[in-house]
Amino acid sequence: MSAGITEARLPRGFVDRTPDEIRASEAMMRVIRETYERYGFEPVETPLVEFTDALGKFLPDQDRPNEGVFSFQDDDEQWLSLRYDLTAPLARLFAENHERLPKPYRSYRAGWVFRNEKPGPGRFRQFMQFDADTVGAASVAADAEMCMMMADTLEALGIPRGQYVVRVNNRKVLDGAMEAAGLAAPEQAAVRLNAMRALDKFDKFGLEGVALLLGPGRRDESGDFTKGCGLDAGQIELLLAVLDGKGLESLSGVLAASPRGQEGVAELVEIGALIRAAGYRDDRIRIDTSVVRGLEYYTGPVYEAELLFETKNDDGQPVRFGSVGGGGRYDGLVGRFLKENVPATGFSIGVSRLTAALKALGKLSSADARGPVVVLVMDRSAIASYQTMVAELRKAGIRAEMYLGSSGMKPQMKYADRRGAPIVVIEGSNEREAHEVQLKDLALGKEMSKDISDNEIWRASRPAQVTVKRADLVAEVKRMLGAAGGRTE
Amino acid sequence: MSAGITEARLPRGFVDRTPDEIRASEAMMRVIRETYERYGFEPVETPLVEFTDALGKFLPDQDRPNEGVFSFQDDDEQWLSLRYDLTAPLARLFAENHERLPKPYRSYRAGWVFRNEKPGPGRFRQFMQFDADTVGAASVAADAEMCMMMADTLEALGIPRGQYVVRVNNRKVLDGAMEAAGLAAPEQAAVRLNAMRALDKFDKFGLEGVALLLGPGRRDESGDFTKGCGLDAGQIELLLAVLDGKGLESLSGVLAASPRGQEGVAELVEIGALIRAAGYRDDRIRIDTSVVRGLEYYTGPVYEAELLFETKNDDGQPVRFGSVGGGGRYDGLVGRFLKENVPATGFSIGVSRLTAALKALGKLSSADARGPVVVLVMDRSAIASYQTMVAELRKAGIRAEMYLGSSGMKPQMKYADRRGAPIVVIEGSNEREAHEVQLKDLALGKEMSKDISDNEIWRASRPAQVTVKRADLVAEVKRMLGAAGGRTE
Repeated sequence: MSAGITEARLPRGFVDRTPDEIRASEAMMRVIRETYERYGFEPVETPLVEFTDALGKFLPDQDRPNEGVFSFQDDDEQWLSLRYDLTAPLARLFAENHERLPKPYRSYRAGWVFRNEKPGPGRFRQFMQFDADTVGAASVAADAEMCMMMADTLEALGIPRGQYVVRVNNRKVLDGAMEAAGLAAPEQAAVRLNAMRALDKFDKFGLEGVALLLGPGRRDESGDFTKGCGLDAGQIELLLAVLDGKGLESLSGVLAASPRGQEGVAELVEIGALIRAAGYRDDRIRIDTSVVRGLEYYTGPVYEAELLFETKNDDGQPVRFGSVGGGGRYDGLVGRFLKENVPATGFSIGVSRLTAALKALGKLSSADARGPVVVLVMDRSAIASYQTMVAELRKAGIRAEMYLGSSGMKPQMKYADRRGAPIVVIEGSNEREAHEVQLKDLALGKEMSKDISDNEIWRASRPAQVTVKRADLVAEVKRMLGAAGGRTE
Repeated sequence: MSAGITEARLPRGFVDRTPDEIRASEAMMRVIRETYERYGFEPVETPLVEFTDALGKFLPDQDRPNEGVFSFQDDDEQWLSLRYDLTAPLARLFAENHERLPKPYRSYRAGWVFRNEKPGPGRFRQFMQFDADTVGAASVAADAEMCMMMADTLEALGIPRGQYVVRVNNRKVLDGAMEAAGLAAPEQAAVRLNAMRALDKFDKFGLEGVALLLGPGRRDESGDFTKGCGLDAGQIELLLAVLDGKGLESLSGVLAASPRGQEGVAELVEIGALIRAAGYRDDRIRIDTSVVRGLEYYTGPVYEAELLFETKNDDGQPVRFGSVGGGGRYDGLVGRFLKENVPATGFSIGVSRLTAALKALGKLSSADARGPVVVLVMDRSAIASYQTMVAELRKAGIRAEMYLGSSGMKPQMKYADRRGAPIVVIEGSNEREAHEVQLKDLALGKEMSKDISDNEIWRASRPAQVTVKRADLVAEVKRMLGAAGGRTE
């Protein structure tokens, strides 16, 4: 690299968004917004920068504060951070404005969040979330509503019933199982965390595998050994009860000794009743006590939206698409700012993951990504004439542009092709004298190379290049675009 | 403040966005996007974080790098910054991908940018810009197009012709005037900058005032003295020629000695011809050599969109609304990354400023901000019944919610009022037994308090509270919403 030249590159884990990605996620988010509005939620947005302490991180002594968070000092020495999710800023917003906000406060927002972590395939340091939250409602009816809204959203996006499920659990059930197993003491936090991680492996290893992870440890097929939690048979049996699928009544019996566990089961029963009353069955929203959601701050119901159709993993093996979002109740988060506790529950969608899922299902068409009609510049001195043509086309609502580079005919055709132009308009001096233009149908050229049954008839009705009166330019372009079956704007 | 309580507040210069602001700017940006698409531009977006050096800032020795820019070190010690505009990141994107991108490369994007500056009224440290750029086109046809696109955009947004103007100048004309005045030497950069600032005061102080600022200095009515540039009469005369409005031919004569000035005038003549050929007259796009745009990196045509209607300033005085966006040619910016120079031109809209203008003109209706139908909870044990009602209403496309708080009738009515609910649905035990619900028309209550000429007739046809069959809930709500003249979704 020569001296004085800056390298054009992005920091690790940051990426540009392509036209396709932008159009796809915008189309998707429009549907999400419509659904959330129908549920009575209001848009509200917070800035990308917050005081570090408002995000629930504390000022450290080290040079590099807040592992996982991008932080910097303001000129008055106060620490600022880029938000790492949309929940902590919403808690700040509610606390700051709680006197004037309606309660319960129902809101939604999409926005970029940042993680100062090691990036990897599909793991970025900037990504977009789409959240909805109800703050100030203690009733589990608010949680049930979140789950129904998520199911409705996925169907509005075109995901067929049976291809998704929203699973609901309750953090209190897990806490209750820990309590029943004698693992509730504050100093047992580490073993609880390990046990949670083991339970979270149920999908992968089944009941037997989880039992090994909770107990002596597990050796996989390659011979690698994962250390176990060292729990005894009675403890393991208690914990496995959340996974065994015998239902809430059975679980309630197992957790008889834990008031917290009983509360959790009762809340799940109530959620189940509400959901069924609203007409949602097990194929859409399912009580499933095996759901483990990692976030520390959840205090009650937790829920996860999973897509059930198969896709290929990195090794080409078919796997379920998996989670596209989730959430839960975080009754403590707003209370950090106020003297009272404020109940709250919310759902977060991973925008790029859900976009990828919809693309895989063919539910996000790129129909409106058709390129512009390109007016070629055959003759620099006639540029005003070309400019007039594009102005006419645009006025008629047709996407159009004049070639703005300085290259000849061949590069101009290549440009039109790269832009996905359906038509190029050609006016040389001969055409100008005759008050005519040539229209070249590039879309037809592309179709021709495909295998179309009625190819010949179709071709006959739609020649690839026509000469038309200059005065008929707009009408002819419209006709050709109509024949190509696309939109004209 | 008690110990352990975090204060809920935002750093200076950062603000939350309200539902109204979000809805208004989204509606506006939809129109801008449609216009840019019709011109053949493609969406593309860059992340909010870039390498500091890629933004054109250089790594300093101090603790606090890059006055004006939020910067922080990555874990490999490299400096990262939040972008301060959308142009520098686009230059990086183009340079990084120039081999595969179509050329010219026409793109648009909206996004947040950050300035680490002292905030003030209307001045934020995070704000949104909406940019369009053409990279790789040396022809001033690209600049002419930007101006036409801006004029079309403002009209698409509902700003009437005559209420706006896009003014076009050329940095080369200003440079030429400096050259003709003998101020072109590198060591005269400071006096050039001061002279530019003086010229930029033309709107405020007129020719005479600018002449004083260029010469001995100017004393205002309050007695405050502004130091002048100390230029002599001949120099002042040359510089004032860009302001005097005598036209390009006259200016060309004045700048006869400056090849750069001649080039600038010739480019303006060409832009003028292109614009007229496309049907844009002086009332929409105007060559105006008094336009000064501050950004260092402009190298050719510069343009500014100004709104001409009056609004009140902070002192209640009527003033022109003024600039809502601008741009220009920045031929050197991409070249920083490549071995060749790459011509480029672009336009940037200040989103919140233009939103404010459209609101002032009444062009952004808040019609779709109607609140949800609220189903009151009269009886906690019947919550499943209420949940069923909202599910039915939503299925019919009606914005609806069940009250999720735990308060009684009065606070629930207050909540519905705060949310702007058009209707509340009431089902007590009596109604349930009779298979009926009560519908209370809150929108009507509000209308009643206004002075409506046909009040009585209208009231007669639309009673404020009706009892209807439970089975007719959806149909009756639809009918009432229709009568209120609003949308049903």
